[in-house]
Amino acid sequence: MNPILVEVTRGGHVESRHAGALAIVDADGAVLAQLGDITRPIFPRSAVKVLQALPLVASGAADQLNLSDAELAIACASHGGEELHVRTAAGMLAKAGLDASALECGAHWPGLDTATRALAASGGTPSALHNNCSGKHAGFACLACALSGGADLRRFFSGYVQPGHAVMREVSAALQAATGFDLSQAARGTDGCSIPTFAIPLRQLAHGFARVATGVGLSNDHARAARRLREAVAREPFMVSGSGRFDTRVMERLRERAFVKVGAEGVYCAALPERGLGVAIKMDDGNNARAAEVVMAAVIEAMVSLGDDDAVFMRSLSEPVLRNWNGIEVGGLRPTPALRSLGS
Amino acid sequence: MNPILVEVTRGGHVESRHAGALAIVDADGAVLAQLGDITRPIFPRSAVKVLQALPLVASGAADQLNLSDAELAIACASHGGEELHVRTAAGMLAKAGLDASALECGAHWPGLDTATRALAASGGTPSALHNNCSGKHAGFACLACALSGGADLRRFFSGYVQPGHAVMREVSAALQAATGFDLSQAARGTDGCSIPTFAIPLRQLAHGFARVATGVGLSNDHARAARRLREAVAREPFMVSGSGRFDTRVMERLRERAFVKVGAEGVYCAALPERGLGVAIKMDDGNNARAAEVVMAAVIEAMVSLGDDDAVFMRSLSEPVLRNWNGIEVGGLRPTPALRSLGS
Repeated sequence: MNPILVEVTRGGHVESRHAGALAIVDADGAVLAQLGDITRPIFPRSAVKVLQALPLVASGAADQLNLSDAELAIACASHGGEELHVRTAAGMLAKAGLDASALECGAHWPGLDTATRALAASGGTPSALHNNCSGKHAGFACLACALSGGADLRRFFSGYVQPGHAVMREVSAALQAATGFDLSQAARGTDGCSIPTFAIPLRQLAHGFARVATGVGLSNDHARAARRLREAVAREPFMVSGSGRFDTRVMERLRERAFVKVGAEGVYCAALPERGLGVAIKMDDGNNARAAEVVMAAVIEAMVSLGDDDAVFMRSLSEPVLRNWNGIEVGGLRPTPALRSLGS
Repeated sequence: MNPILVEVTRGGHVESRHAGALAIVDADGAVLAQLGDITRPIFPRSAVKVLQALPLVASGAADQLNLSDAELAIACASHGGEELHVRTAAGMLAKAGLDASALECGAHWPGLDTATRALAASGGTPSALHNNCSGKHAGFACLACALSGGADLRRFFSGYVQPGHAVMREVSAALQAATGFDLSQAARGTDGCSIPTFAIPLRQLAHGFARVATGVGLSNDHARAARRLREAVAREPFMVSGSGRFDTRVMERLRERAFVKVGAEGVYCAALPERGLGVAIKMDDGNNARAAEVVMAAVIEAMVSLGDDDAVFMRSLSEPVLRNWNGIEVGGLRPTPALRSLGS
């Protein structure tokens, strides 16, 4: 078992607890800090979207199609399905000469409650563009433009979620190059949006994000791509998540100082350029709605030098108050001493 | 740490895991089976609503107001905020001579996604009647009728969520009598709907539900009330939860053979009348959306003699398949051998 990293309190008593593991690694692969088992492979899910987007820039597709910061940011996103997300993903597809019918990610109601209610109130129903991964898939469509060699794009792109498709091979190769983990030997599952997800140890995931933070150990093309993507997300943090959500809020404030990205089932990864560090977190129970966010906030507090205002802001994320339906404070979340020991 | 009870798989590999504890106890308080720590007090939250509803019947209020099975069932409910739930809770309040403005539970959008979308599509916004606890609070209003002694009901009822109010004292006394746990010494928190929640060990919670299952060890009035409430829920299982939800589905099929009730933060309780047993479950991480349901389904499989069709049905709940947005099977949930050992 991994150590308890987060406690949930009610009335001053611990009501629930979340165990997990995390690795903080530099660009040379040296482990600066760790809690729990960082050698067991875990499915990183959406936390590695920035690694999966490296070929979009490195291939030249982003330049050829004149993708904006917002479009590059949404290629790395798990967005909440807000109207601007939907329009941005649709715009990328249009630049590639395709539309939503080319997407193979499936449709779901927006992840953000207010966006779902707005869509329902307008009499609408969700399309693949509302899928939290639609920007990533639109990015795959743009990448396909660069890989298709003049073939009919719709035909070339069809089946792109399959592991053996030229697009997915390029995406998986970037993931392998960044993490240094041999994906041909990795356990494989199917992600929510139907592309493969490969099990990778936290240590290698964190190393991959240290490379994103620094460019060290990446090819020149991938290093340039990593920088371009980080800059784009820092300028357009709304696109990577959405209104009021953790990743957007953190990057609206810290901008290029911290690239943070959630993944399903309690995964979080981050690149901290100032320190040249990468971070990878996995909660045992798969909880990312609250537990992994508290861990990431505590890691940022420990690893990034924050001014007073930023410190207050990050503390509101690492020790959030829980209120009930009447707005009464009923408890909170807090890092355990084991997690707080990171900074010392 | 408590043992792992549930594993989440993807592509045949374990992706996440849920630890927890459970107690299965008979009406004499003897522990028939246990996993993990069943002596540590935990907040039972909404899982004890049937115990909190005992005074509604025992006081004579339910008879005086001619409450229906549906109304008694919703008094024990964490409902999804569907239209029929809202109407039923409103009808109870009307019988008491009150309306939604008397409720102190707070308002929230319906817990069932389809109900939220229907409400949003109709241009509506949620009231306290949509709160998953509105039936319980409407039951408190009916109980107040019996306790008010002819005083102005609205004035008498005001502030009923406070621990010292006559209504809440009666409710807490029933909880103490059923579980045999001294609540004056218990840790106390504020629940989502603003009433107090008292920390009680799983062993005592399970004992309380064995008493609900059998009437043994309860006062005559409480024994009669427990039977009446179990029968009402068995006849109107939609009212206790809602469309497609675990408690409703299980009791639609098993009826009086199993009374099951979820609570927030990974709590589940059950009364199994045929075996004269009570069950109490707490997942360490507070996950009830999936983990506690799998545990409860596995407990029913181990403890209730099921025909072939019912066995297939329960297996679909104890080992549910997980599908992605395209309907592709990507993994599943399963009880661990430790949990499966219960039946042997």
